[in-house]
Amino acid sequence: MTEPLDLSWMRVDRRRGPALYRQIYARVRDAILSGRLAPGARLPSSRTLASQLAAARGTVEQAYNMLAGEGYIVGEGAAGTRVDPELRMKAEPPPRARTGEPREMGRDHGEPPPASAPQPFQMGLPALDAFPRKLWSRLATRSARSFASGAIGYPDGVGHPPLRRAIAGYLAIARGITCAPEQVFVTAGYQGALGLVAHALLRPGDALWLEDPAYFRAREALTRAGAQLVSVPVDADGLDVARGVARAPDARFAVVTPSHQAPLGMTLSLPRRLALLDWARRAKAWILEDDYDSEFRYRGRPLPALKSLDRDGRVLYAGTFSKVLLPALRLGYLVVPEAQVARFAGTARFLAPSTALVDQMTVAAFIEDGHFARHIKRMRRLYAERRTALAAGLEAALGDRLRIEAPAGGMHLVARGVRPFDDVALAERARAAGLAPGALSPWAIKAKVEPALLISFTNVPAGEANRVARRFARVVERFL
Amino acid sequence: MTEPLDLSWMRVDRRRGPALYRQIYARVRDAILSGRLAPGARLPSSRTLASQLAAARGTVEQAYNMLAGEGYIVGEGAAGTRVDPELRMKAEPPPRARTGEPREMGRDHGEPPPASAPQPFQMGLPALDAFPRKLWSRLATRSARSFASGAIGYPDGVGHPPLRRAIAGYLAIARGITCAPEQVFVTAGYQGALGLVAHALLRPGDALWLEDPAYFRAREALTRAGAQLVSVPVDADGLDVARGVARAPDARFAVVTPSHQAPLGMTLSLPRRLALLDWARRAKAWILEDDYDSEFRYRGRPLPALKSLDRDGRVLYAGTFSKVLLPALRLGYLVVPEAQVARFAGTARFLAPSTALVDQMTVAAFIEDGHFARHIKRMRRLYAERRTALAAGLEAALGDRLRIEAPAGGMHLVARGVRPFDDVALAERARAAGLAPGALSPWAIKAKVEPALLISFTNVPAGEANRVARRFARVVERFL
Repeated sequence: MTEPLDLSWMRVDRRRGPALYRQIYARVRDAILSGRLAPGARLPSSRTLASQLAAARGTVEQAYNMLAGEGYIVGEGAAGTRVDPELRMKAEPPPRARTGEPREMGRDHGEPPPASAPQPFQMGLPALDAFPRKLWSRLATRSARSFASGAIGYPDGVGHPPLRRAIAGYLAIARGITCAPEQVFVTAGYQGALGLVAHALLRPGDALWLEDPAYFRAREALTRAGAQLVSVPVDADGLDVARGVARAPDARFAVVTPSHQAPLGMTLSLPRRLALLDWARRAKAWILEDDYDSEFRYRGRPLPALKSLDRDGRVLYAGTFSKVLLPALRLGYLVVPEAQVARFAGTARFLAPSTALVDQMTVAAFIEDGHFARHIKRMRRLYAERRTALAAGLEAALGDRLRIEAPAGGMHLVARGVRPFDDVALAERARAAGLAPGALSPWAIKAKVEPALLISFTNVPAGEANRVARRFARVVERFL
Repeated sequence: MTEPLDLSWMRVDRRRGPALYRQIYARVRDAILSGRLAPGARLPSSRTLASQLAAARGTVEQAYNMLAGEGYIVGEGAAGTRVDPELRMKAEPPPRARTGEPREMGRDHGEPPPASAPQPFQMGLPALDAFPRKLWSRLATRSARSFASGAIGYPDGVGHPPLRRAIAGYLAIARGITCAPEQVFVTAGYQGALGLVAHALLRPGDALWLEDPAYFRAREALTRAGAQLVSVPVDADGLDVARGVARAPDARFAVVTPSHQAPLGMTLSLPRRLALLDWARRAKAWILEDDYDSEFRYRGRPLPALKSLDRDGRVLYAGTFSKVLLPALRLGYLVVPEAQVARFAGTARFLAPSTALVDQMTVAAFIEDGHFARHIKRMRRLYAERRTALAAGLEAALGDRLRIEAPAGGMHLVARGVRPFDDVALAERARAAGLAPGALSPWAIKAKVEPALLISFTNVPAGEANRVARRFARVVERFL
């Protein structure tokens, strides 16, 4: 933390080239994309950098603002500015790394070579080695051909009708939700669902309960949409509804992850579910249920979705295909109460239409032909195996330093230290070693959370668990 | 208009089946989708229908609200409720009619058979017979395969980088716009661009200039986003800037179609452009330039985009691929001033991410490989020929009844009557005869517009122009 900053990469030319703030922006961005600045790495303060470059401080700030807006860096008040520690986990890998499309590779400069595999422990990714790429490719090329040969008019902005029907059918079986296809809106993943809800129902200044800790991107989206966030702590039973009522009885929204709290993994208990619904009914508030990681459950009976208990039409239910199929699809869905269908249909068609008709056709076929149910079942078995193997491997290699918790569901383990440690710094150091655990601290809003690491097991084959755990141990040993 | 309403199709069962309002909703929707209720057709008032069905008026209103929200019907105050007269032109053809995907056909009930061709005169569609489907199919299947085999992480919500670059390159050459790829945001067509702008910059209650007449869907989107619309008349030079300044000097937005006014087709004159920019600079207002139909120009030199004159960073520029490629793509783009990049990047990533990576890859390849420029050139020639032929055919068949105007650009003719007539009723009648002109009246906000028909020539081959015009004459003769 006190090492002098190496700024050798910050070469700018004040006399030539684009405006100075653009040069600074580009140098920092390139340094992040090339890995020279790792996630979590500190940047010089705008004052320091401005003085080193003999530039105005406002110039540096303009560059930093662009970088922050694009999600590369985060300001942490007195703690200074860092490369976003969650950069890999939550976000876009560098642009070119995604498709591996060979024709594009030669064209780019300053971007890293395409990633051929996800990093072990990386959150939010399904097992990419187990995705049925050939089958998908076959269905997708069929959709693409059918689209090219037949598509005539404008697709319906609420979603491709066969996909809406397929989702409604899936939710009835898998999540206990009875809904008509018209209640299902296809969205650009969870972020698109948040945008749709914000356009349809949120008024700037509306008070909104958010779990603490909570998904960074939900927090950011809701803040940008003008919500007044009220953080509500979670405990072993999930969101503490009574604390929410005490803090903001008249809130208009509650955003919750009942199946598997993001990121701690507990389930919202049934009494809490009923209390939450009761509050929403009385307060005429909306509950946005993010059914985070509900597809995977390894012990006990899964509770049906909160939405299945919604008698008063207060629950909006969001699901996504990003983590059960492929993140690159960025397709999700929102189920709204019947009385809200008209409002949401208008909002979707006029302000947030769904697109990606080819992908929607492919997902619909994948579900209708039974591949989806089979894929989830297969992944559940695979993840159960990987979860057990990695937990055991970490226990063996690091049991004296970390306490490994395996939540009943989801796609990651939670590892707490036997004594306090800097989880952000550890995660950062791990990334340099090619491992990508998340740090819990940045998910907290006001809650005091014990530092912890969030360790996804989805992309660690069981046979490699011990080896990967030992590799991780060499990093952890420096901190704990 | 005074014919008794035939409600034989409104069969509901109060004792069985879904809730009564859902049955009413479904019957009306089916009647519209099956063509029994044509665009523009009147519906019984909620009072009348409720009494005929012995139902509560609120029940009928609930059904009507759903239908209105989904865009099937429009309320017109004292004038009652109608099937949206613009339904075909502006909107989604009925869901199943789009892709012609054979595997889906057998599954649906209550929806019309797939349309195999667009109706003559239908607005907003490119020449579907001239779209290079084979080439597209080849590029799209390549993208789909590459996606399936390589996609790893989450795509960047601001757009696929090669597509952003390709768009920036195209705009530099075709529209005189100098912008960096980072200024380009990929959107879900024009509606998605409006949603992005609304999330990023619009505060409820903001005053906003809108051309009068204006695109129905822009008006609806902006109203839903909470804007306070101020209608500003257009004349032969386009938007009357002085009137805008007089009506709402402190408006925060102006939404304009400078290249080709939607739908009348005049170009915003250079003095007006400069006046508009000057106002925006002084008022610190945003100009949203919808570069409607700018790709096609048949006489005179096209003016570069308004954005190319934007010295003060006040212009947001929106374009779409819906009308130069395929509506079913629903892909568009928004170019924002450099100083707004950070804000829009955050908004896009957190609240309105782009999706459709496969389609984005395909469009990028289509542009980069030179197909896009060739396609536009080819369409320009084809449309020039179709425009001339249809104008001549209509002139010959209907010159004594309609004055045919062919604007210098765009994709449709404007036909005014030699005496007053009911353009909505005529358009409705024409649809029953398999022709789909638009009516001008519903585009007007407060402006008194002469009734007129909007007649697209893109899907009328030159060799069929006379025949189609004579067919149309038989409809027109009943009205004029």
